[in-house]
Amino acid sequence: NQNFCNNVNVFNLRKAQQGNERPKDPKLWPYFQDGLRRIDYVLTYHVQKPQSTRKLSAKSCLCFKFRREQSSPPAHEDPELAAQEQRLDYHEDDQRLRREEFEENLREMGLEMEREEGNKIPGVGFLKIHAPWEVLCREAEFMKLKMPTFKVFVLVNMFVQKVTATLQPKVGENRVENEKYLSYPFSREKQHLFDLSDRNSFFDSKTRSSIVSTNPFRKAFCLPSQGQFKTKCHLSPDLITKGPDVVLILSLQILCEEWASYSIFYKYQPIGLIRKYFGEKVGLYFAWLGVYTQMLIPAAIVGVIVFLYGCVTVEDNIPSMEVCDERNNITMCPICDRVCSYWKLVTACGTARASHLFDNAATVFFAIFMALWATMFMEHWKRRQMRLNYIWDLTSFEDAEVSHEENVKLTCRDRMPAYMTIIVMMVFLICVTLAIVFGVVLYRVSIMTALHMSSTPSFRTNIRATVKTTAAIINLIIIIIMDEVYGAIARWLTIMEVPKTDKSFEERLIFKTFILKFANAFTPIVYLAFFRGRIIGRPGKYIYVMGSYRMEECAHAGCLMELCIQLCITMLGKQLIQNNLFEIGVPKLKKMLRQRKIDKKHQEELDKTLHRHEKDHFLGPFVGLNPEYMEMIIQFGMVTLFVASFPLAPLFALLNNIIEIRLDAKKFVTELRRPIAVRAKDIGIWYTLLRGLSKVAVIVNAFVISFTSDFIPRLVYQYMYSPDGTLHGFVNHTLSYFNVSHFQPGTEPTESMHLGYKVEVCRYKDYRDPPWSDTPYEFSRQFWAILAARLAFVIVFQNVVMLMSDFVDWLIPDIPKDISIQIHNERNLIVELFMKQEQGKKYRNTIGDPSPQPLRSRPSSQA
Amino acid sequence: NQNFCNNVNVFNLRKAQQGNERPKDPKLWPYFQDGLRRIDYVLTYHVQKPQSTRKLSAKSCLCFKFRREQSSPPAHEDPELAAQEQRLDYHEDDQRLRREEFEENLREMGLEMEREEGNKIPGVGFLKIHAPWEVLCREAEFMKLKMPTFKVFVLVNMFVQKVTATLQPKVGENRVENEKYLSYPFSREKQHLFDLSDRNSFFDSKTRSSIVSTNPFRKAFCLPSQGQFKTKCHLSPDLITKGPDVVLILSLQILCEEWASYSIFYKYQPIGLIRKYFGEKVGLYFAWLGVYTQMLIPAAIVGVIVFLYGCVTVEDNIPSMEVCDERNNITMCPICDRVCSYWKLVTACGTARASHLFDNAATVFFAIFMALWATMFMEHWKRRQMRLNYIWDLTSFEDAEVSHEENVKLTCRDRMPAYMTIIVMMVFLICVTLAIVFGVVLYRVSIMTALHMSSTPSFRTNIRATVKTTAAIINLIIIIIMDEVYGAIARWLTIMEVPKTDKSFEERLIFKTFILKFANAFTPIVYLAFFRGRIIGRPGKYIYVMGSYRMEECAHAGCLMELCIQLCITMLGKQLIQNNLFEIGVPKLKKMLRQRKIDKKHQEELDKTLHRHEKDHFLGPFVGLNPEYMEMIIQFGMVTLFVASFPLAPLFALLNNIIEIRLDAKKFVTELRRPIAVRAKDIGIWYTLLRGLSKVAVIVNAFVISFTSDFIPRLVYQYMYSPDGTLHGFVNHTLSYFNVSHFQPGTEPTESMHLGYKVEVCRYKDYRDPPWSDTPYEFSRQFWAILAARLAFVIVFQNVVMLMSDFVDWLIPDIPKDISIQIHNERNLIVELFMKQEQGKKYRNTIGDPSPQPLRSRPSSQA
Repeated sequence: NQNFCNNVNVFNLRKAQQGNERPKDPKLWPYFQDGLRRIDYVLTYHVQKPQSTRKLSAKSCLCFKFRREQSSPPAHEDPELAAQEQRLDYHEDDQRLRREEFEENLREMGLEMEREEGNKIPGVGFLKIHAPWEVLCREAEFMKLKMPTFKVFVLVNMFVQKVTATLQPKVGENRVENEKYLSYPFSREKQHLFDLSDRNSFFDSKTRSSIVSTNPFRKAFCLPSQGQFKTKCHLSPDLITKGPDVVLILSLQILCEEWASYSIFYKYQPIGLIRKYFGEKVGLYFAWLGVYTQMLIPAAIVGVIVFLYGCVTVEDNIPSMEVCDERNNITMCPICDRVCSYWKLVTACGTARASHLFDNAATVFFAIFMALWATMFMEHWKRRQMRLNYIWDLTSFEDAEVSHEENVKLTCRDRMPAYMTIIVMMVFLICVTLAIVFGVVLYRVSIMTALHMSSTPSFRTNIRATVKTTAAIINLIIIIIMDEVYGAIARWLTIMEVPKTDKSFEERLIFKTFILKFANAFTPIVYLAFFRGRIIGRPGKYIYVMGSYRMEECAHAGCLMELCIQLCITMLGKQLIQNNLFEIGVPKLKKMLRQRKIDKKHQEELDKTLHRHEKDHFLGPFVGLNPEYMEMIIQFGMVTLFVASFPLAPLFALLNNIIEIRLDAKKFVTELRRPIAVRAKDIGIWYTLLRGLSKVAVIVNAFVISFTSDFIPRLVYQYMYSPDGTLHGFVNHTLSYFNVSHFQPGTEPTESMHLGYKVEVCRYKDYRDPPWSDTPYEFSRQFWAILAARLAFVIVFQNVVMLMSDFVDWLIPDIPKDISIQIHNERNLIVELFMKQEQGKKYRNTIGDPSPQPLRSRPSSQA
Repeated sequence: NQNFCNNVNVFNLRKAQQGNERPKDPKLWPYFQDGLRRIDYVLTYHVQKPQSTRKLSAKSCLCFKFRREQSSPPAHEDPELAAQEQRLDYHEDDQRLRREEFEENLREMGLEMEREEGNKIPGVGFLKIHAPWEVLCREAEFMKLKMPTFKVFVLVNMFVQKVTATLQPKVGENRVENEKYLSYPFSREKQHLFDLSDRNSFFDSKTRSSIVSTNPFRKAFCLPSQGQFKTKCHLSPDLITKGPDVVLILSLQILCEEWASYSIFYKYQPIGLIRKYFGEKVGLYFAWLGVYTQMLIPAAIVGVIVFLYGCVTVEDNIPSMEVCDERNNITMCPICDRVCSYWKLVTACGTARASHLFDNAATVFFAIFMALWATMFMEHWKRRQMRLNYIWDLTSFEDAEVSHEENVKLTCRDRMPAYMTIIVMMVFLICVTLAIVFGVVLYRVSIMTALHMSSTPSFRTNIRATVKTTAAIINLIIIIIMDEVYGAIARWLTIMEVPKTDKSFEERLIFKTFILKFANAFTPIVYLAFFRGRIIGRPGKYIYVMGSYRMEECAHAGCLMELCIQLCITMLGKQLIQNNLFEIGVPKLKKMLRQRKIDKKHQEELDKTLHRHEKDHFLGPFVGLNPEYMEMIIQFGMVTLFVASFPLAPLFALLNNIIEIRLDAKKFVTELRRPIAVRAKDIGIWYTLLRGLSKVAVIVNAFVISFTSDFIPRLVYQYMYSPDGTLHGFVNHTLSYFNVSHFQPGTEPTESMHLGYKVEVCRYKDYRDPPWSDTPYEFSRQFWAILAARLAFVIVFQNVVMLMSDFVDWLIPDIPKDISIQIHNERNLIVELFMKQEQGKKYRNTIGDPSPQPLRSRPSSQA
């Protein structure tokens, strides 16, 4: 959608900015009607259509109405006998009162306002807010906003700068910036420190809007209205105009060209500009996404190498050679009762060879690599975050947690029912997830049996693949549908919980959503990896579910192959469908619906006369970053949790993310209203979740390697049982003997002569004693030895990898060295500045010259 | 040593303080000679005795000399031909220059000084430093010191206060303090906020000395002298007078009575007062020690209950009953070659019964309990620390890390040799530790064999106990000696490393010391728990070390008993010897030696005329808290790491700590000079080490339970092999058969008829196939099954406990709720204050009244 970008272009903005004059086009005037006071914030509200005004004057009838509130009925309802109309009036009155109170509060805080109602867009009023200089100063001081004082020199690694020059987005003329403003918390008493020559541009638009929205706003918003749920306070009007300013529109244009475009997918993102326009929170998200994508590159490369290693060595792989060798005339027991017959192991040749691609020695290495990779990623992000904190002057920013306990005091007893509901609901939903997985298993089992019964022999070979693929697709569709359902339920549950602060609301919501979506996405995979084919019993004593269905077996070479297919389909499908359908399709649809409401004929006419903020009204509201983060976290789970079974996962994730970044960028720039700039020092609970995932990944990968893959049995065979120290004879060793006369009556194959000879002993994959031993069909000594080896491997793997992760964590300092040196130097500079001021010297004269002296440490006084 | 306390008493200080007049006794005058300027800091230096002054006037000859510097020779030495005397002169000159430079630096920072040399104590000069009001204000502003503004009300849980009233130390009249000064970072522009009516007491003595020692001092101290090692900068003169102030001496007296006394061992410590007198860092140590001791109480109680459970159930314990049952006529294989003979299992009855005390089902519960306890302890401490941070106004304090890179820039290549030395040295030392343990093992084995050979039969029964005990004592002595050696080596290695900052010096030193001391203390225990009795081979194929010594076996019921004895001796012995000898004895001795230097006859005379700071010169220097922390950390390791094998450990630790607190208190109050008050927000690296230990504890305990104790074999027997689901037959099940004809020639017992009958098959403790099976003496199926069970238990235990710990960690908020509410309220109060000031109201008049209104939140404006 290059539309917007082009639209902006025509104004020839660069010229306008250089001349430092207001643009001619009144649509760009970000000022009140008087042309003096700048608009810092715009609120929208619903205006009663003129025909329905009765008692109240047109001016005071504006029903100040928050967006989502429309759905919730007013808390104090009239008795049922009151007419519907009267109730509406009453409701309007209530809204008017609240709006007036709200405006009064704002005015008390020193803000100035201008109303503009229903001129061009019927039914919508705009409240433009201007923060005067005094208010900005006061609030900046309370917020301890760090503001620039004077320029200092910053050490920049010119070599790195040069190498990455082509990858950098073009955001300004002076490419390599080796100076930076030294910032100091704003204080009205220390105004001499700051360059206040241009009061209009001292606080930039983002800072102004965030100043307006932070302190005075919150207080004004949390009206203790009728003892309703505190979630009221979470409603904050979410329209800040896209470009009320020449500078802003200019940045928006640069963002369009240098960020929201697929053609520059290989470039870094202009994070500084993103932050300047959207605020720190959004900036951090894109910085995080960038770091994650960047880190995926080595992981993808190593993953591809591991996969290629599997491809290359498939010919030398002794176990698959043995399976494919016609001379090893091994007769296997039937895979289903009655209708299936005995089969030759050699028919599993293809699966065995394919399995080797994902189950070889390199996989173990890759699992360890990815565990360390996850740690490196976390560390790298911590450092990046620290660097951004420094550059964005957030180092001493403390998140003022605003709690609203004054509104409603809920005791533990009040909260009990909600908590109980949440727990019951969560357990129920997870049970639903499990039930769905079980349902898919039943589908697979029953279809398989049915197909076996009715199909012609030539059709049988394709049965497994067909069933696997359809089941995986069904799984995928269910996952995508349930994802949306669970998201809605989690929000409902969190609203019921009535958390005290916005932050805790968000955290609880994220936590619940995460648990549900995570369970939803990973239960089928966990089943495939750890349960499938393990609870089948043994020939002659199979385990049956739902009466007569035997549990599904795995192919000869383990379930790893099927796990692979499932992962592949889930990752690709989820990303494709969610990206295309939900992220591109649905917003488009919504926008179309919104525009449909306006009369078609007026559309073009309006387009020309509308102010910026009026146009923005038609854009979608900003709904927060949580869905974006959630999507990425689930993907991170896919990449790390089962990476031992699917080394191509990082590659898939990388390809997806390259598109994802630009897709999100486009959405933010052209589809959504400009969000309120929220200051944030870190990515909050998401970091905790990432850490948790990377911890869980270690143990999951340990289990995948030792239990799902045949890695440990191969090792044990090679070093304990093999006569010549090679894997020759391994396949034979993994198969136990079964005497066909021991079949339970009625379960033996009907076509017993299918192979052309009478079978007396068939083989099955398990470590059990043969029929002729003292303890027939008991778990053999090998079984226990291999089990012990598997468990030992889990312990060793988990603890070694955890230790290595902790070591890497400890080795890499959280704060990059250059940043810590610069922070230290800046602190010294500030102290020196004050010392010099004290000694009566006018420091500002000397600090003006751009010699690098100030940044270097004090010249050492030689003894 | 009540001496000091009594000494102080006579001044009748309370009276003096109430009158707010200076004490009559000139010894208490903490002022310069002019009687106006207060002494904030005292430095000592070495003065040349008068007879050796030649060229320089007596005044400028004072050789300013830092303490530890005496040992290091001056860096720029004259050529060898120069006379010794001349060199001394040169050295003096150098010292004088440096001292003058130092003093000049101090003067430049605005400090005022007075010298007082060798009047009463020959050879020692004092440099008294006074910080004028302007300097104090300036530095307080730079340090962003939070100073009290006006009083606000604080929510105090009166019920808790009343219940714990008798446990609280008596430190003031107004016991329950429900108000607190709201503090705000000191700023010279906001002086109206603070109560500056009494400039002398606005900054208290601790704050003054820390202001003096922090900023201007450091700068003055880190002279880039002759490119020497930066460790020079770690020298800071460490004499602050014990009580330069009436208020201080008064607090010292309260500390004597209400803290440094054994009779009040059951009371809380007066942490606030400790912090006021010794500074935040020392205060945090004692607070931490208090929390740790307090948390040990429940652990000790549960530990005792677990032990008692073992005592009570010893009679019902089937395995030990079976061992003691004479009817089970089980003949065991000899425990040493040739000289030992076959023996009856019933003789191991005592050991088996004793083992049950420490190896029963309750032990598993206790191990889980202690893992959670450790997490709870960490959480509890975090909360306590946060609370102290709030009370001590440190919430926004940032530790300004002072790095001295200006002095010497060491590149990686410069550092390489040091790093290599450190790594080699550390590896070597750990090898030494291992060698020592192996030596003790050899001692045990050889003594055992020797005793067996020579002793009379009646003596043999006591052999094991004797050898065990002597070996444990030898171990203990070696541990204590090596502890001191390792401490010295770690310091030497760290000095060689030349870390950049004081903080990193300390951290690296602590880290090295910790690793060495930890390895030293725990290697013997780890050997006992996991290696002893596991690498012995089997009858007929024993493993021999050093030619002919068989590795030691465990008693029948596992090595747990011996582990217990070792732990018991190490804990008790280490604590008793280290406490008594090193912490009480050595300082006493040093003090005696110091006082011996002064002429005996002058002693009493001096005692009467000496000023406080002159007296303090004879006290021991404060050497930091690291040894105290280290001792406690090792103890924490003992309590958590092997708690599964020794449930009484928390009790021992508790008893030790109750003494330790008062012992340390006495030392700090009476034996040591007053340390510089160092601000600290947390206990730094110690917290990391504690966390690390509690993580390691989980896996160690998992291994102790599953491999050292017989818990898993019992479980497996009961559920897999037992015919009737009880433990009957368990002992028989654990013993394998050995055909005596399979002994290696020359190793069969010489007195084979010792038991009175001919033995054909003897038993030994292992899971191996009997001689008559197809695979004689191979590990049996039971062996592998039990091994798998053991490993599975480790995985389950580790992950479940880790999950539970993380859950507890997540459940308990890091910041106590009341503190977070108060912080939030205070922030609001400050904002309100400024808002009111802005609106032209004189706020200070209204805030004075003690109504609780201000602390409550804004009255909600009803709609």
